[in-house]
Amino acid sequence: METIKHQFVQHIRRLQDVICLALEEADEKTLFKEDLWERPGGGGGRTRIIQDGNVFEKGGVNVSEVEGLVTPVMKQQLNISGERFFAAGISLVIHPGNANFRYFEIYDARGTITDNWFGGGMDLTPYYLIEEDAVHFHSTLKKICDECDPVFYPAYKKNCDEYFVNKHRGNERRGIGGIFFDHGRPDEKLTAIQWLQFSKDCADSFLLAYLPIVERRKGMTFDAGNKYWQEIRRGRYVEFNLVHDRGTLFGLKTNGRTESILMSLPPTVRFDYNYKPAPGTPEDKLWQVCLSPREWVLS
Amino acid sequence: METIKHQFVQHIRRLQDVICLALEEADEKTLFKEDLWERPGGGGGRTRIIQDGNVFEKGGVNVSEVEGLVTPVMKQQLNISGERFFAAGISLVIHPGNANFRYFEIYDARGTITDNWFGGGMDLTPYYLIEEDAVHFHSTLKKICDECDPVFYPAYKKNCDEYFVNKHRGNERRGIGGIFFDHGRPDEKLTAIQWLQFSKDCADSFLLAYLPIVERRKGMTFDAGNKYWQEIRRGRYVEFNLVHDRGTLFGLKTNGRTESILMSLPPTVRFDYNYKPAPGTPEDKLWQVCLSPREWVLS
Repeated sequence: METIKHQFVQHIRRLQDVICLALEEADEKTLFKEDLWERPGGGGGRTRIIQDGNVFEKGGVNVSEVEGLVTPVMKQQLNISGERFFAAGISLVIHPGNANFRYFEIYDARGTITDNWFGGGMDLTPYYLIEEDAVHFHSTLKKICDECDPVFYPAYKKNCDEYFVNKHRGNERRGIGGIFFDHGRPDEKLTAIQWLQFSKDCADSFLLAYLPIVERRKGMTFDAGNKYWQEIRRGRYVEFNLVHDRGTLFGLKTNGRTESILMSLPPTVRFDYNYKPAPGTPEDKLWQVCLSPREWVLS
Repeated sequence: METIKHQFVQHIRRLQDVICLALEEADEKTLFKEDLWERPGGGGGRTRIIQDGNVFEKGGVNVSEVEGLVTPVMKQQLNISGERFFAAGISLVIHPGNANFRYFEIYDARGTITDNWFGGGMDLTPYYLIEEDAVHFHSTLKKICDECDPVFYPAYKKNCDEYFVNKHRGNERRGIGGIFFDHGRPDEKLTAIQWLQFSKDCADSFLLAYLPIVERRKGMTFDAGNKYWQEIRRGRYVEFNLVHDRGTLFGLKTNGRTESILMSLPPTVRFDYNYKPAPGTPEDKLWQVCLSPREWVLS
């Protein structure tokens, strides 16, 4: 039987192909460019970037499989012990859609697995709130979660609302949320195989959750004011990723590949002093839902 | 006799007026707007912002005087003990010129000063290297330092080169440096009065160091390619401030006033995947000097 590690890696590699092809079709103009890279300590990855497309101004789909010695920084940041590690993951940042799924293994000096866990999630960071899209995105995620365990969606939706927060901005969320889980360890409730299946199903659901929104909205027109607001909101995304996001900071502090980590940063961004949308405007409507997350799907 | 604290506060308040007036004159169009704010735990500040000027796209000059209980986060981040604190500072971010000067006092339960120190510095983050400007900027700083102690300029220039570094980008500096000092505590070499004088002289020298460069260059024309490169470099500035800058992170984690802290972020920014200037171009010339800092003044 194939190991969990092997199955996970095979799945995310294939999924990268599937997602890139689907996004290229939606863009109708631009193709992803690929960079293969190696990690000095062991392993490497395949970063694919789309830029200046018809639909996608900048987007990245990255798969990586890294391994090596557990460093002191890793011990502290991941709260683990052990001699060696393996980690694989797929990361998608197609503003305003984000997803990340990963699998970790920790080994003792003999190479025996002493710890392993799954983590990941996906969220939406739109610049305007279209309730129909929010409901579609969250319904898709709830359906996938419910197939595994009905407690997952409410718990992971809450995790997401509590994680993607700019605490320095009065608990403003970066977007309208999604799901987020971490430390998904095999236990009496869920075996490793079941966690693997759940992670695969979630990762596969990115296209189901995101692409219909792209297709419905990609023809919408926008003016300079809309673009301005988009860049203000992107600023908040940058603040979250660089100040708070554990994955980003972990990558930067453990000598990850900077360009693959920071592919998440939006292409053009604006930082205004004390910018606030006027009450009652569509901009304000989005802002309010970032300040007070809503339930998008009835349970 | 006036306390050190009082003298420092008076000085930075007056200096804020002087600097804002001088920058308004250089801009010839736009005036600073002022926000007075109070800190819930004690103290407050005066933030002044200039936006969409003739010369200055966005700039801020902030003075703050805050006080209160020493929190666990402060103990850890500042490596101090004590019951209460007072801190005052002036912060200028007039891209590409930056300066910050501050004074801290720590008190025991009876209100007696148990620790006090000065810190600060200024640096230049130009988008193109004009050697004459770099020499002028550094010469001005060296002169001020030398008047106090000839060991200061080389030591503080080195501090600056080692501090304003994007370690996640192969030790790329955010600009062409300047001076940076911290934990300037009264000791057998320098009394508190002498530290105060040095800090005041340094802060006063911002206009001497920066304004002649603005005056010489403000009429220069630029094209879309120059603007593109400016926004790429500003992205590096954002990365430094949000990922590495102790002052920014300290402010955000101790419930500082977010808008005054993040006034430092440049107005429009661009994050490209794996952007590298072509070898031999003026853009590359600036990049190279960020990778390998130079000595601009002979000692």
